[in-house]
Amino acid sequence: MNVKATTCKGTRDFNSSSVYKREYIINIIKSCFRNYGFSPIETPSFENSNTLLGKYGDEGDRLIFKILKSGNFLKDVDINILSNPIDNLNILSKNISDKALRYDLTIPFARYVVQNQNEIHLPFKRYQIQLVWRADRPQNGRFREFLQCDADVIGSKSLLQEVDFIHLFHDVFNKLRVPNFKIRINHRKILLGLSEILDLKDKFIDLTVILDKIDKMGIDKVVDEVLKIGLKSSLKPTLIDYLNITGSFNDRINYLKNILAESKIGMEGIEDLSYVYDNIAKQKLDNNSLELDISLARGLNYYTGVIYEVSTNNNVKVGSIAAGGRYDNLTSLFGLNNVSGIGISFGLDRIYLLMDSLKLFPEIDKLNTKVLFINLNKNFDQFVINAVTELRDNNINTDFYPDIVNLKKQLKYANNIKVKYVVIVGENEFKKSKYLLKDMYDGSQSEHTLKSLIEKLK
Amino acid sequence: MNVKATTCKGTRDFNSSSVYKREYIINIIKSCFRNYGFSPIETPSFENSNTLLGKYGDEGDRLIFKILKSGNFLKDVDINILSNPIDNLNILSKNISDKALRYDLTIPFARYVVQNQNEIHLPFKRYQIQLVWRADRPQNGRFREFLQCDADVIGSKSLLQEVDFIHLFHDVFNKLRVPNFKIRINHRKILLGLSEILDLKDKFIDLTVILDKIDKMGIDKVVDEVLKIGLKSSLKPTLIDYLNITGSFNDRINYLKNILAESKIGMEGIEDLSYVYDNIAKQKLDNNSLELDISLARGLNYYTGVIYEVSTNNNVKVGSIAAGGRYDNLTSLFGLNNVSGIGISFGLDRIYLLMDSLKLFPEIDKLNTKVLFINLNKNFDQFVINAVTELRDNNINTDFYPDIVNLKKQLKYANNIKVKYVVIVGENEFKKSKYLLKDMYDGSQSEHTLKSLIEKLK
Repeated sequence: MNVKATTCKGTRDFNSSSVYKREYIINIIKSCFRNYGFSPIETPSFENSNTLLGKYGDEGDRLIFKILKSGNFLKDVDINILSNPIDNLNILSKNISDKALRYDLTIPFARYVVQNQNEIHLPFKRYQIQLVWRADRPQNGRFREFLQCDADVIGSKSLLQEVDFIHLFHDVFNKLRVPNFKIRINHRKILLGLSEILDLKDKFIDLTVILDKIDKMGIDKVVDEVLKIGLKSSLKPTLIDYLNITGSFNDRINYLKNILAESKIGMEGIEDLSYVYDNIAKQKLDNNSLELDISLARGLNYYTGVIYEVSTNNNVKVGSIAAGGRYDNLTSLFGLNNVSGIGISFGLDRIYLLMDSLKLFPEIDKLNTKVLFINLNKNFDQFVINAVTELRDNNINTDFYPDIVNLKKQLKYANNIKVKYVVIVGENEFKKSKYLLKDMYDGSQSEHTLKSLIEKLK
Repeated sequence: MNVKATTCKGTRDFNSSSVYKREYIINIIKSCFRNYGFSPIETPSFENSNTLLGKYGDEGDRLIFKILKSGNFLKDVDINILSNPIDNLNILSKNISDKALRYDLTIPFARYVVQNQNEIHLPFKRYQIQLVWRADRPQNGRFREFLQCDADVIGSKSLLQEVDFIHLFHDVFNKLRVPNFKIRINHRKILLGLSEILDLKDKFIDLTVILDKIDKMGIDKVVDEVLKIGLKSSLKPTLIDYLNITGSFNDRINYLKNILAESKIGMEGIEDLSYVYDNIAKQKLDNNSLELDISLARGLNYYTGVIYEVSTNNNVKVGSIAAGGRYDNLTSLFGLNNVSGIGISFGLDRIYLLMDSLKLFPEIDKLNTKVLFINLNKNFDQFVINAVTELRDNNINTDFYPDIVNLKKQLKYANNIKVKYVVIVGENEFKKSKYLLKDMYDGSQSEHTLKSLIEKLK
């Protein structure tokens, strides 16, 4: 029985060219992480279900891929549930599945810190570049399997970390030569302060969800929506003032100080952002790349302090390409209290789409095979293999055509795989112990001994 | 509610040191693959269930991790099955799960070749370094999540490929400095020939399973087991002759020629091995590292030609560290016929265990943070951050202690993270715009301007 050869919805094969380009991005991110004092860790692709479920809200739980138990997966299921499975879908799911694919790298990192707390030294700085999986509806820039590149520091409340991550964003996108990137920053305490001032403390989450949509909805619509969740009309002008904040970073800080003057927590957030801004190295602030964005809220509710999002002003619509923020007490989910952390994540797949559209990748030909030996006669096997081996031993990426077919077909193959050089051994060359080198790009030819061939190609 | 922080059975966290060591192995394997003309591809972690199920035998099917459908996973289940789920476990499993984690890289590769056949050029040489998952009972060197490093050529029947993979095995283990590795080679046609000669053609799989256990069982036990599956006692001496084959590679070839003289397919296998042996470059045959092993069978039944297995003669018991072989028509599973392939796989986790036991890893300190700035006074923040930024911009991996705590605690942290240098800025240094550099390994100290600090550390 033939099976149709297809990948699953939302997942992709990567050919060599994509792999090389992905590696190019990963290597730059990785070298920046190391440059900033982060060390790598890796965690397993799946975790116990109770490590992941309940950490990302109901929507998150729904999007987590659950793994069926091996063997008799029904053995722990209560007979009453089995007799009415459709009404007990959630319980049944938890009974027949005890593992799940990781949804992000942050919760597994928190689990790692707690599990390995005797081995690590706080403040602990780690980076982690691994796949995550979400059963999301696939669309442009959103996949069911994608790669996250995370850096986190855990065990320090110092605002110098907040400063440092802005430098890191800057360095990564600068080195990738991404033009017009914008690092937007806000503070969860400013949002909390706003909810206090608007007398909407108990509607905080709803308020942040609405604010986050300001780009799509515009100010008027946002005000309407906030009125719907209970904003008193007397406080409408305050909200409008807030949403109309504009100007330089320091201008915005000053406006906020007026609006949130009555909120202690709001003022704490402003003070933090003010310190962060004052301490950014001036060379990392080119192109007005940092913006205080009072509508930035971030979906994940574990954030408690500064939050970031990086996007670009190019025509390519891929959403945010990096994001992050400070979270307090994430490790307390696993029993380790009073540990503050801050972290950021680069979305490799979106950065890739952006860079590919803008043609920002360098030539990657040098990673490919440099020379292909043409195979014309079984009697020359040893003579050819010997040369192939010598070239490889001299670190020249070398291949040979494996079958004896006509020259034209072999040269066509050489063109297809875009190899720069071919080596031809005919009767003539074989007798003289020589190799005919042909440059496939410009068509030039030259005859070589093995030694001069190596020198030429090295 | 606190959740216990634990990894799933058979999976592992990797700390920085392990990640660096793993990268060391991966980079050597990858550079050898590229040196031999292989290009990378990557495939998704999960595939449609029907791509994987039925390809690895019943045992394999049992060991494949299945992913529960998202949302209402019961919606496609027949009511009759739901009313008697325990008796319909297999059907139920197929109804509630339509995706599975990949079990190896070979079947996804075959699927890739068929799905992307218009984009690739045969012979197609690819490497693939990705995780695979098996619901196996964990034991030393066997995990539920592990990394395979595969190289395959598809679309050529040339025996020069068989030769080339022996060179590749040799280069990889030579560059990793693994001592006493042994490449064992056999041919499925020799085993088929044996089954003909022993009049056990219809017991071929059983025969190979028994032969594969000769290391554990010894010759007598193997003979007993083969008698049990139907070997006529008149043919017992033939089997004993076969099992006692010894001597050099060519000696063994000659013995085999006598024993299998009556089997056409057996003689084809012998001829192939003879050609392969004659064409191996002499510099890749040091230490008698190649052995014709007539009991080698390989578990996977898709092999049809030469088969390999690499193991070591060290005291560390990790099983085979690499393996592979030729398979015909694997792509026909997905509708593409008459394409022969050959491939090998390096088991990273076992190579790691072996190298770690034998202390074969080089020092990896240079990848870590080189210098840590001590943080003594909030007033020095800008002065310190400025220097940190300059050092990083000069490609020196640099970090700072984020919080203001006493010097002793910060130096202890520096020792814990094994950083070589710390920079101390006290009142004195701050006034003079100088930096005190301390070598944590030998205790020496020196005072620097920013410029001389960069020069010293670069």
